[in-house]
Amino acid sequence: MSAPIPPVANAPRRILMGPGPSDTHTRVLAALAQPTVGHLDPYFLKIMNEVQAMLRVVFQTTNPLTIAVSGTGSAGMEACVVNLVSPGDRMVVGVNGVFGGRMKDVAERAGAVVHAMERPFGEVFTLEEIEKAVKTHKPQVVGIVHAETSTGACQPMEGIAKIVHDAGAVLIMDCVTSLGGRPVRIDDWGVDAAYSGTQKCLSCPPGLSPLTFGPRALERLDARKTKVQSWYLDLSMVRNYWAESSRVYHHTAPINMNYGLHEALRIVLEEGLDVRFARHLKNHYALRAGLTALGIQFAVAEENRLPMLNAVFIPQGVDDAAVRSRLLNEFGIEIGAGLGPMKGKTWRIGLMGETSCPRNVLNFLAALENCLSAQKFPMQAGAGIAAANDVYQ
Amino acid sequence: MSAPIPPVANAPRRILMGPGPSDTHTRVLAALAQPTVGHLDPYFLKIMNEVQAMLRVVFQTTNPLTIAVSGTGSAGMEACVVNLVSPGDRMVVGVNGVFGGRMKDVAERAGAVVHAMERPFGEVFTLEEIEKAVKTHKPQVVGIVHAETSTGACQPMEGIAKIVHDAGAVLIMDCVTSLGGRPVRIDDWGVDAAYSGTQKCLSCPPGLSPLTFGPRALERLDARKTKVQSWYLDLSMVRNYWAESSRVYHHTAPINMNYGLHEALRIVLEEGLDVRFARHLKNHYALRAGLTALGIQFAVAEENRLPMLNAVFIPQGVDDAAVRSRLLNEFGIEIGAGLGPMKGKTWRIGLMGETSCPRNVLNFLAALENCLSAQKFPMQAGAGIAAANDVYQ
Repeated sequence: MSAPIPPVANAPRRILMGPGPSDTHTRVLAALAQPTVGHLDPYFLKIMNEVQAMLRVVFQTTNPLTIAVSGTGSAGMEACVVNLVSPGDRMVVGVNGVFGGRMKDVAERAGAVVHAMERPFGEVFTLEEIEKAVKTHKPQVVGIVHAETSTGACQPMEGIAKIVHDAGAVLIMDCVTSLGGRPVRIDDWGVDAAYSGTQKCLSCPPGLSPLTFGPRALERLDARKTKVQSWYLDLSMVRNYWAESSRVYHHTAPINMNYGLHEALRIVLEEGLDVRFARHLKNHYALRAGLTALGIQFAVAEENRLPMLNAVFIPQGVDDAAVRSRLLNEFGIEIGAGLGPMKGKTWRIGLMGETSCPRNVLNFLAALENCLSAQKFPMQAGAGIAAANDVYQ
Repeated sequence: MSAPIPPVANAPRRILMGPGPSDTHTRVLAALAQPTVGHLDPYFLKIMNEVQAMLRVVFQTTNPLTIAVSGTGSAGMEACVVNLVSPGDRMVVGVNGVFGGRMKDVAERAGAVVHAMERPFGEVFTLEEIEKAVKTHKPQVVGIVHAETSTGACQPMEGIAKIVHDAGAVLIMDCVTSLGGRPVRIDDWGVDAAYSGTQKCLSCPPGLSPLTFGPRALERLDARKTKVQSWYLDLSMVRNYWAESSRVYHHTAPINMNYGLHEALRIVLEEGLDVRFARHLKNHYALRAGLTALGIQFAVAEENRLPMLNAVFIPQGVDDAAVRSRLLNEFGIEIGAGLGPMKGKTWRIGLMGETSCPRNVLNFLAALENCLSAQKFPMQAGAGIAAANDVYQ
């Protein structure tokens, strides 16, 4: 058991225009490299408190239990589900993409009887559909994906919580891709539990999952008759670890990752949420104009499109892998492949957080023209750039 | 929902002599700050392959499934248990400290019928005790802690796997605190599944959990009749994400944390395992000499002491919190409090990875003298330093 020692890592500088991770600000990278302190050091407790306070602003909530789970977005999903579901509970999950499907799988593993409310990939649910599913299946828990990372569709959230609460259930929301890039209003929307990821519109590397639990969710957690099946994600213990008054050791938090998130959140608040959302929209409009001018179609109806994740159909006759590979190797630009049933059918072009800027939009359109041209795709040279530039006038 | 933006993080430089995290090398901090790439980027796949190859050397195993779980050590523990335990399985867990107790809790949440084989904190198990428990309780899974982080006791591992295998069971081993600091010989010992943490003797910040699964463990995983209860930690999917030939998306790995682990492992292999283990022993001997000269007693019998985690009794009349607080605030040195029933009774003085060096041993003994002197503890001034220096002659 020996092996040659590999050379020192020398990561290339990419432009990350896939479904996440997005580009990381150098200030965040520098924060990651600050000296590690103990996880019970008073200095780190201060960092944890500040991370919580800033996450509350980003989530638009006053929920005391607003933390960064020590795992990636999928760990946050699992934390929400396993803390709120007890074996035998009924759960309704909206499945209109890979991540709704994942939530169903997670809930079934937690012992829930799950009714999957289905919609084709790229579409969203109406309030009537949700109301019907809730009345029919009488769930204790409802799970909805706000921003489907696999399809680029945005679920309107207004009105859903009332339906769920009127039926005595609690509402879990996936906002992995939306948080920090468009409004996520936990309290206004009445969402009881939500989770996100750090590597999307917060532009921090992956490794933590922002999570918030409101009063109804906590009440449900407190009323459990069985232990949460995951020790690592058991919020009845994790909440004491993050408690601002008297901390109780649970696990060892990823110290340096929390430094990174702290700095990423500072950048978000410095910019201001409204300015940040407007920036994401504007760059989306420019990208949309450019792609449309090249004859490329979006996979999601206009009114449901996520500005930070643009799913478009791969034009007929164009080689999916060849284009993505040329973009990466010749231009250092990463875009995402389609996921699940969309594999080979769509590209997912992310404009998340730091990535969302005019320079990247123009750069990408120029590089895409090059790649499409190599594939003999018929288009008007320069039309994409020109249309995007019109938006930036 | 708004909050003042806190000032930029400005982490103090500590000497981390607690039970982990340990000091992080500046090379590892610099690696954390390399540009984030996509988690399916060919460059990151290369990093993953190299991390796996280096982890195999450190674990002394040829197991193909040797990876870094995307969570801290407790996530690695949960990964081992939930993948190998199905509801109703019998498990024997050695409980001689907090982490054995944690494994019992995790196993019960996974539906196991657990027999806790108990020993007072600080002691270890004999082969006869283990054999008796296995014969009596006929478990499918046995869990043993190699290095009890809560007590500083080291469980001899030779001979245990034969007992477990003869009974048709598989052996899980916790080596969170030992890996990289003293021999951990997965293949020689016949351990079927093991997990560790990055923030102990590997001297990488917390956030990942090195894990290895051998053929018997994989066979058991493949033969499961029910899904693993955790989606996030389901190794039947995670193994394909880490597969060297054709990767399948599962979750998004913590990219920059893996850069850090990559560099930490390079440092371990550059030093060489045997040299590294000898260094941990020598600094332990020096610390032991110094503490003994001051009249401080170890909490673990000499033959079972972990060189990287020195649990000592707090001398009578000395204020636990006052000493730890003075060490931290006046000298920037962190040591650990006692955990569980040892709270207020012991200190845990870590000499792990980068922290384990003569300079830190001498520095700590000098600072401890200062703190004990402030508490009017009777001792011969300078005796600790002199005794430690004798070891370094």
